[in-house]
Amino acid sequence: MANVGKVISCKAAVAWEAKQPLSIETVEVEPPKEGEVRVQILATGVCHTDAYTLGGADSEGKFPCILGHEGGGVVESVGPGVTSVASGDHVIPLYIPQCRVCKFCRSSKTNLCSTIRSTQGQGVMPDGTSRFTCKGKTVYHFMGTSTFSEYTVLPEMSVAKVNPAAPLDKICLLGCGCVGLAVIMGAKAAGASRIIAVDINPDKWAIAQQFGATEFFNPKDHNKPTQQVLVEMTDGGLDYTFECIGNIKTMKAALEACHKGWGVSTIIGVAAAGQEISTRPFQLVTGRVWKGTAFGGWKSRDSVPQLVEDYLAKKIKVDEFATHSMPLDDINKAFELMHDGKSIRSVVTY
Amino acid sequence: MANVGKVISCKAAVAWEAKQPLSIETVEVEPPKEGEVRVQILATGVCHTDAYTLGGADSEGKFPCILGHEGGGVVESVGPGVTSVASGDHVIPLYIPQCRVCKFCRSSKTNLCSTIRSTQGQGVMPDGTSRFTCKGKTVYHFMGTSTFSEYTVLPEMSVAKVNPAAPLDKICLLGCGCVGLAVIMGAKAAGASRIIAVDINPDKWAIAQQFGATEFFNPKDHNKPTQQVLVEMTDGGLDYTFECIGNIKTMKAALEACHKGWGVSTIIGVAAAGQEISTRPFQLVTGRVWKGTAFGGWKSRDSVPQLVEDYLAKKIKVDEFATHSMPLDDINKAFELMHDGKSIRSVVTY
Repeated sequence: MANVGKVISCKAAVAWEAKQPLSIETVEVEPPKEGEVRVQILATGVCHTDAYTLGGADSEGKFPCILGHEGGGVVESVGPGVTSVASGDHVIPLYIPQCRVCKFCRSSKTNLCSTIRSTQGQGVMPDGTSRFTCKGKTVYHFMGTSTFSEYTVLPEMSVAKVNPAAPLDKICLLGCGCVGLAVIMGAKAAGASRIIAVDINPDKWAIAQQFGATEFFNPKDHNKPTQQVLVEMTDGGLDYTFECIGNIKTMKAALEACHKGWGVSTIIGVAAAGQEISTRPFQLVTGRVWKGTAFGGWKSRDSVPQLVEDYLAKKIKVDEFATHSMPLDDINKAFELMHDGKSIRSVVTY
Repeated sequence: MANVGKVISCKAAVAWEAKQPLSIETVEVEPPKEGEVRVQILATGVCHTDAYTLGGADSEGKFPCILGHEGGGVVESVGPGVTSVASGDHVIPLYIPQCRVCKFCRSSKTNLCSTIRSTQGQGVMPDGTSRFTCKGKTVYHFMGTSTFSEYTVLPEMSVAKVNPAAPLDKICLLGCGCVGLAVIMGAKAAGASRIIAVDINPDKWAIAQQFGATEFFNPKDHNKPTQQVLVEMTDGGLDYTFECIGNIKTMKAALEACHKGWGVSTIIGVAAAGQEISTRPFQLVTGRVWKGTAFGGWKSRDSVPQLVEDYLAKKIKVDEFATHSMPLDDINKAFELMHDGKSIRSVVTY
């Protein structure tokens, strides 16, 4: 409790500019203001979304910043007015908050709480300012989470309090990592009879199978378009397809691999800024549905604690996501492993 | 019954080639073969879809042919094996059949019976041949219906038997005309509080209002993109949008006019061959759904008779669609009225 109300100096991986490695720095983290929570991050996953912004393709990317959105930590202190969490609570930072009052939160149809959307997109807290500085410069937040820092500050509505029995270096990945494997797990839970994992990296087949995939499809093994082969393999197309990598060509293929009349294709991956998806409207008129989801459609504060319970009850797998771990000093190695397709997920522990 | 089993010579409007007016000719109509029905058409609507194929934009358009798909008629005779209709029954030809045995018919999720899809698309009956000739030449069927002829032949699965109390020159339009007004009527029935009719022809406002529209929006009155203005008008966007004209730009606008989190955009209009719709995938990831429908999603043989009952019970309006009527000899005038935006629907009576 020694730091309550004081600036904390700690270690963080700072992205000074796009397309450069992260730099391990000492940063200053201000105490939480009203409605805010300061969290000591104990573990964080390194995700393609972090790499995407670091690569300069994210129109909202604002530098310098502290990346990271798959964190797990312990509340260090809370600002005035915070009632739902307290010092010592185990929490998962949420890049989609749940304010419970906006029209999105009041609707059962969506999880896209929009209360702090604009400031979060600008890399600042809801009051329009950052809590991070480094070498005298303002450092911006990222996705409202900035988990590549030993300490970070979040709005109360952006943390989910979870069962402290769960290991933070695993459940941090519930912050939305490994969507491809998560989709396979979901399809299995939903009772799908055939689950076809599509990847150009055959090394992924073993783990896909572990999560429930029944077949592996490598587009590089075929001369015909992926959608055509999949339609032929499945007597007219798939009932459900999911695009998990953010490529507009695979989004099109995923839609067109759907069965006429009822196939539903869901986009999860985030495409580069300005890119557009396209298809002949006939694909939709003949009964295919094109939709998307963010954070799996989960209302974040309500659902993440439940997902942690499901993990503890062994109803969902998470441990298997984490194939590598490393200290913060080696975080750039996590990006390399990901780029080279050698890791499923690297978890940085502090 | 005099003609049973014999070729009938009768009048029809023949489309000899694309982009030319229809030609009133005497055609020969063969008797129905096994599983087929010969129908005396008494009335037919003239629809944009007929004009679209006549205009040469339909990749499936095959000439010479007899267009027309919004018909109403009386069964003249039936071929061997036909059990569900008999001579004298009032029927509506169906461009989407309902065989009740294919996997699409057995699914509750779709109405897209595909049993005869390939032959219908080629302008022939399920046995691969046409029942029409004119001046010694084979004339092709269109949409499996060819209602611009005094007599036409259809598969049994492509006719709906309806209550003979209903006037055929009105209920012929249940063959799927006037989808824009039908959507307005559906939205009203579903309890929509605001129903915004979008058209560049302000003359359409009066009838739109009659069907239940509460507001009229003319894109020509605005300098900003339609989707942007609609989002501003509706506090974040519309819950449901419908594209009824087959223009890929309005399809995009209709999707992007939807509310984040839950807006659903449905494509009904048929775009020209080869054209593609496009949008940023972010539109879908943030909760909008892009889908389509053909024939309103109705299982055709089951639903059309019920729609006729609803019409007779004054639950749905149809009479108001038919603003003009004319004999077959004047059918080209019906196309002109439609192109000039002067008619809602012209009905040709024989």
